[in-house]
Amino acid sequence: MIVELEKIGKYEFVAEPFHCDFSGRMFLGHLGNQMLNAADFHSTDRGFGMKYLMTIQRSWVLSRLAIEMSEMPGQHERYAVETWVESAMRFFTSRNFRVSGADGKVYGYGRSIWAMIDTETRQPTDIYAIDDGAIDNWIVADKPCPIEKGGRVKVSGNAGFVRSIDVHYNDIDINGHVNSVKYIEHVLDLWDIGWYREHRLKRFEIAYVAEAYQGDQLRFYREQTAENEYSVRLAKIEKMRGVEVEVCRCKAMFA
Amino acid sequence: MIVELEKIGKYEFVAEPFHCDFSGRMFLGHLGNQMLNAADFHSTDRGFGMKYLMTIQRSWVLSRLAIEMSEMPGQHERYAVETWVESAMRFFTSRNFRVSGADGKVYGYGRSIWAMIDTETRQPTDIYAIDDGAIDNWIVADKPCPIEKGGRVKVSGNAGFVRSIDVHYNDIDINGHVNSVKYIEHVLDLWDIGWYREHRLKRFEIAYVAEAYQGDQLRFYREQTAENEYSVRLAKIEKMRGVEVEVCRCKAMFA
Repeated sequence: MIVELEKIGKYEFVAEPFHCDFSGRMFLGHLGNQMLNAADFHSTDRGFGMKYLMTIQRSWVLSRLAIEMSEMPGQHERYAVETWVESAMRFFTSRNFRVSGADGKVYGYGRSIWAMIDTETRQPTDIYAIDDGAIDNWIVADKPCPIEKGGRVKVSGNAGFVRSIDVHYNDIDINGHVNSVKYIEHVLDLWDIGWYREHRLKRFEIAYVAEAYQGDQLRFYREQTAENEYSVRLAKIEKMRGVEVEVCRCKAMFA
Repeated sequence: MIVELEKIGKYEFVAEPFHCDFSGRMFLGHLGNQMLNAADFHSTDRGFGMKYLMTIQRSWVLSRLAIEMSEMPGQHERYAVETWVESAMRFFTSRNFRVSGADGKVYGYGRSIWAMIDTETRQPTDIYAIDDGAIDNWIVADKPCPIEKGGRVKVSGNAGFVRSIDVHYNDIDINGHVNSVKYIEHVLDLWDIGWYREHRLKRFEIAYVAEAYQGDQLRFYREQTAENEYSVRLAKIEKMRGVEVEVCRCKAMFA
């Protein structure tokens, strides 16, 4: 096999005015969205993107995402997202991200874990069954990604109920469930502008557990775990059965 | 003065997966955002963008936006937004948009009305005072935009209360108030996926009346005005005074 493409993909973006918050810095949700776009471009160009996987009844599912930023791109600034596959196992791959500015300044990094599922059974499937284990051709084990891996997010029974919201039309993407980035936005909305005026979001982690759908009610439970550190458990009340089910867990660290 | 730039600006975009709804077609909010980006690029390149205006204590304020689409770009499709100034008066300019695909197919059009305000007094100011009436150099009166102008949106006292939501961190942009596109998203969330499965949004109009801020509660009133036609009045309960004030009016026409 002739590998013509670089193992690392690099994609350029501009921080759009309406993707920036009151302070003129990009919303973390929009940056996360561009990371997921970069992952999509990278995997599509290399023959293991969503579009191809759909034809063989497979799909990537984002399992975890951690983003750690020393600064966020400001309005109108050009920035690049690099992405590469750090490692692969039978049921999971680890994909990293590096965000840098036009002048080479590093804004921050991301780490993500993806599973591959069978779109009919919704069960995990063997990543190495795709194109004879071709994923191994793309692994870059030695590019630094100097942020901690996302661990298990602990949320104790003491996390207090903060808010509930209903899932609406704009929350749902082409997969028919709540878009991964929308959870991030809804969770970050638990803090108000007064808080963001005084604090910078340094690191955000999310571990996806179950999918939510239109008609579900999302319920947010939050607890403070250290100074400027919070865990958030997001549950849904299923429309049909009326039971509460965990949807995702997040950790937000502010500076 | 040597005019080196074309009067009409053309900007290319891709319909990102997460900017598409359950059906794989772009959300109207994201298309509206790209129209506003195109307006920003066009005016910035021609010397009357927000960035320059800020230096002379002026700003553009979007007063009305109407979008009429015969089809929405689908996931991964490339599309272009053309924009031009159709006319200018002392206090308002009219800017149009045309959305087309890579193959030249026309998806639809947009019309917008902008005022220029003094950022200190928040009062309308004379657009012709900027650079000796330079806006006249950019007017394209003869490019067709075959959709109706937005009229006054009538909402009678019979419009029924549908929902209220609180304004959060992610709603607020760098101007410190609720982002123009967020209103569109919140209004379109009044219909559920079941409705969108059966109906296509053909035309959407919004007229901005007042600004909303974090801490405000937004209240949505809706009435059906014809078959598949609805008017929505959006009001806010001001955090400080507790009074209800009209924020914007919308009209949604489905097919």
